[in-house]
Amino acid sequence: MKNFNDLADLSVEEISALLRLATRLERVPEPRALQGKVLSLLFLSPSLRTLTSFQSAMAQLGGNSFVVSPEMSIHKLESRSGIVMDGAAAEHVREAVPVIASYGHAMGIRAFAERQSLEDDLADREFHELAALVDVPLINMESAINHPCQSLADWKTLDDLGVPGKGGRLVLSWVYHPRPLPFAVPASTLQMASMRGMDVVILRPPGFELPERIMNKARKAADLAGGSITETEDRREAVEGAHVIYAKSWSSVSQYENRPGDQELRRRFMNWCIDEPWFENARTDCRFMHCLPVRRGVEVTDQILDGPRSVVIKEARNRMVAQMAVLHRMLAG
Amino acid sequence: MKNFNDLADLSVEEISALLRLATRLERVPEPRALQGKVLSLLFLSPSLRTLTSFQSAMAQLGGNSFVVSPEMSIHKLESRSGIVMDGAAAEHVREAVPVIASYGHAMGIRAFAERQSLEDDLADREFHELAALVDVPLINMESAINHPCQSLADWKTLDDLGVPGKGGRLVLSWVYHPRPLPFAVPASTLQMASMRGMDVVILRPPGFELPERIMNKARKAADLAGGSITETEDRREAVEGAHVIYAKSWSSVSQYENRPGDQELRRRFMNWCIDEPWFENARTDCRFMHCLPVRRGVEVTDQILDGPRSVVIKEARNRMVAQMAVLHRMLAG
Amino acid sequence: MKNFNDLADLSVEEISALLRLATRLERVPEPRALQGKVLSLLFLSPSLRTLTSFQSAMAQLGGNSFVVSPEMSIHKLESRSGIVMDGAAAEHVREAVPVIASYGHAMGIRAFAERQSLEDDLADREFHELAALVDVPLINMESAINHPCQSLADWKTLDDLGVPGKGGRLVLSWVYHPRPLPFAVPASTLQMASMRGMDVVILRPPGFELPERIMNKARKAADLAGGSITETEDRREAVEGAHVIYAKSWSSVSQYENRPGDQELRRRFMNWCIDEPWFENARTDCRFMHCLPVRRGVEVTDQILDGPRSVVIKEARNRMVAQMAVLHRMLAG
Repeated sequence: MKNFNDLADLSVEEISALLRLATRLERVPEPRALQGKVLSLLFLSPSLRTLTSFQSAMAQLGGNSFVVSPEMSIHKLESRSGIVMDGAAAEHVREAVPVIASYGHAMGIRAFAERQSLEDDLADREFHELAALVDVPLINMESAINHPCQSLADWKTLDDLGVPGKGGRLVLSWVYHPRPLPFAVPASTLQMASMRGMDVVILRPPGFELPERIMNKARKAADLAGGSITETEDRREAVEGAHVIYAKSWSSVSQYENRPGDQELRRRFMNWCIDEPWFENARTDCRFMHCLPVRRGVEVTDQILDGPRSVVIKEARNRMVAQMAVLHRMLAG
Repeated sequence: MKNFNDLADLSVEEISALLRLATRLERVPEPRALQGKVLSLLFLSPSLRTLTSFQSAMAQLGGNSFVVSPEMSIHKLESRSGIVMDGAAAEHVREAVPVIASYGHAMGIRAFAERQSLEDDLADREFHELAALVDVPLINMESAINHPCQSLADWKTLDDLGVPGKGGRLVLSWVYHPRPLPFAVPASTLQMASMRGMDVVILRPPGFELPERIMNKARKAADLAGGSITETEDRREAVEGAHVIYAKSWSSVSQYENRPGDQELRRRFMNWCIDEPWFENARTDCRFMHCLPVRRGVEVTDQILDGPRSVVIKEARNRMVAQMAVLHRMLAG
Repeated sequence: MKNFNDLADLSVEEISALLRLATRLERVPEPRALQGKVLSLLFLSPSLRTLTSFQSAMAQLGGNSFVVSPEMSIHKLESRSGIVMDGAAAEHVREAVPVIASYGHAMGIRAFAERQSLEDDLADREFHELAALVDVPLINMESAINHPCQSLADWKTLDDLGVPGKGGRLVLSWVYHPRPLPFAVPASTLQMASMRGMDVVILRPPGFELPERIMNKARKAADLAGGSITETEDRREAVEGAHVIYAKSWSSVSQYENRPGDQELRRRFMNWCIDEPWFENARTDCRFMHCLPVRRGVEVTDQILDGPRSVVIKEARNRMVAQMAVLHRMLAG
C-alpha cells in the first residue's frame, strides 16, 4: 500500500482485507512488526484522537513516530507559491514537508479546509499540493474533503456491531454546531456507507444540502455496491427503520466562503440537537455514531451520549485499530 | 497491580517489594519487558519531571508513551456535568478521557487542585471523577491531595541514604513561596514517612497547620508502623536530631478558597527560607529534600541546594526508577 | 565518544570513521542497536529539523527520546546565578538540567546566542555553563557559536556529491535576511570546510566580516589540512571555479549587541539574494547549500531552490543520518 488518502481508492475487497488485518492485530499483538520504523506526523490543524491514536498504533507495532504540530515553537509555515518571504513565516512547506518526510518511512498529514474557495476545497487542492512534496507512503489524516482513517474505523465499528452492508440503513444527520464545520467527515461517511452498500439517508435542514461533487462520487459507489442515497428534511421519515444515526454538523454550500452568512443561516436550526425522540421511528437497537469531538447539549444530549445507543468511544478506539492495519500494510515485512 | 493512586492503598511489604524491583531494574535493565506496551499520559496541569520521567521509564523498559497536555492545540476540555457546550470548550472529559485511555495499556492522569472547595479537594473529587472514566490500570500523577509517585521515589531516596524507618527523624518544614500551593506533596510526604515508621515533625508557622483529614490518615499509619507525628512552630525544637529536612510550601486551610487572604497571611513568613543555621540542631549529616521545582533564595538558599546536604537531584532521578517498577508491575508479563 | 560539542574536538580521521558508520547505518539499518536507550532533548530555543531528526535517529536505532521545549507549559527556566527567584520563573536550570539529564543515557541541548555580549557568545558561555551541569554524554544541538550536527551532515553531503576536500572550492556567502542571525552556522561551516582541506572563500558585504576568533580557529584547521581561507566582497571573483555556494545570513560584528544598528546596516544589502547569475563564474555543476530554514525570494530565489543546483533537502536528510552515527558511537554496545 503506497498511500492511504481516500477510501474510494480501495476496492471493497481491499477494505475487507484491511479490516481483517485490523481485527487480527487487535487480538494477536505484533509488538515487533515495525521495529526501527518511523512515522512522521505533520499537523497543520489541531488534533487529539488522530494525534494520539497514530502514536499508539505505531508503538503497539514496535515502531515509533514523531509529531510536528501547530503549537510547536517553529515559525509559521508559508504555503503560497512565488512569495517573497519577508514576513513572519520563516519556512516554506516546499522545504518543511520533504524534510519531515525524509525523516520517516511513512508520513501522515492533516490540513483542514482553508475555506477560501469551495472549489479548491472540494478538489482537495491544498492536500494534493502537500502530497506532491512527499516521496514516502502517505496517509491523509483529514484534509478539506476527506477523512479516510475515520471512515475505515467507522466501517469496522459497523461490522463489529453487526450492522449489515446491503440492507443496513444509516442516517447521516446534520446537527447544530456554533461554528461552520468542513465537509471532510460527512463526505467520507457518505462515501463509506455507500461503498458498504447501505441505504443512506441524508437528513438536513434547508440550505445544508451536501455539495453535488460529493453526492455524485457517493452515488457511483452506491450504484456499484447496490445501496442507495436519499435526502430529506423530515426527521420521522429519515430514521424509519434505521440501524444507525450518524450525527455531524457541516457548512452551508451557499455560504461556504462567508462565515457570518453561514452562522445566520444555521442559527435557525439550533433545535437540531439529537435526543431520544429522534429515535422513535428507528429500530429499537438503533445506534448513535459521532466522530468526536462532540458538544454535549448542542449536537446531542447527555442522555444519548451516556446511554446504550452511543458507540462513540468504540468508534474512537477503532481509529487506532484500523490505523494499525494501514501502517502494517504500508511498513511491515 | 490494577491502580497506583495512593501509597496508602499498599502495605509496607508491597512497597518494599516495589522498591526492590526498582533497584533491580536500575541495576539490570530490561529493555524488552514492555515491548509493544503503551502508556497514555494526560496532563490537565503542567509538568516537567513527571512528564519526562514517565516517558523515560516506559522507554527504558522497551515500551512507549504518548502525551496529552494543556499546551496542545486541542480545544479546552469541559469537565462540568450537564452543561450545554456552546462556549469555547469543544470536548468534554467524558469523551476525551475514555478515548485516550482506550489507546494505551495503562494511563497516567495529572489534575491539580481546583481550589474551588477545600472539602472537594480533600476528597480528591476531580481525580476520582476522572478515574471513574478509565478502565485500564491508572496512575495518579498528582491530584489535589496526593502524589504517590513522588512519595514512592522519596521512600527509595531515604532507603538509598540509609535513613532508618523506625527511629528515623524527618522534619516536614513549611517554607515561603509567593503563591499558595496545594496539599498534595505535604500530605503524601507525611503519609510516606508515617508508613515508614519515622518520627515526623511538622514545622509550620501559625495558620499553616495541615488539614485534620490529612493528619488523621497519617496518624493511623504512624500508629500501625510505630512512628509518631508532632507539630511545632519552633524551628530549633523541630530539627533536633533530624535525619532530613523536607521543605515544601502549602496553603493556609482557613484561606484555602481565598487567594488574597492566603497571600496576606503568608507574606508575614517570608523569612521561612531554609539556610544553614536551620540545621544547627540537627544531625551533622542531616539532608535537605524537596520535590522540585524549587525557588532559589525564596524557599531555600543556593548554599544548601548546591551543598552536600541537598539530595534533590537524587530524589528526582528516583522518580523515574520508582515509576519503572510501578509500570513493570502493571504491564509486564 | 563522551561528547559531541564541536567538530574541532575530532580529528579528520575520527570524522571519516563517523561518516562511514553513518553510511553503513543508512544502508543496513540496526533497529535493535539502542533498545532501551533514551536520549533527552532540551530545547531552550525553537527547532524543527533538529527536534525531529534526533527523534527519528533514536527511533530508527530502536531507542527512544523525550523532548523538553520552550512551548511546553513548564514555567520559564531561570539561568542567572545568585538570583532570588520571586518572579515568573519557577525553576532554575541548575535543577532542571541535571534532572532531565538523569532521565536519559545521553542528552542534547540547544541554546541560541543570547546576544547580550559578543564576547560571551564567542566563548559559548551559556552552553558551557549548561554543559557543566550534565554528567551523561552530551550533544550540542546548536549553541551561540557552534552547530556541529549541521556541519557533520554537510561534510557527508559534500562527500555524497563527490566534492573533493583538497582542491574543493566552497563559497560561504552572506545573504540578506530581515533579522540579524547568530554566528553558529557560518562558524561551523567555515570550520568544517577548513578541516576538510577545502579552499574557502567568505563572500560578504562590508561590515559583515566574521569575528577574528572564528577566523583564527578555522585558519589553524585550514593550515593543518592544506586548505585556504580568503575573504572578498566581489561576487564574480568569489565564485570562480566554485563547487558549492553555501548561503547563510549572519550579524554584523560591530552591531552585534545593537539590533536596530544591525538592521540599518543590513538593509543596504537586500540585493544579496542568490539567483542564477551568481553562478555564472562557478563550475557548471556548482551546488547550492543552505542549512534551512530559508526565506524564499529573500535569501535565494525559487528558481535556485527548486532547480538542480539545490541540495538543501539532501543536507537536511543527512542531519538524521549523521546523528544516527553519533548516537550509535555514544550509546551502542
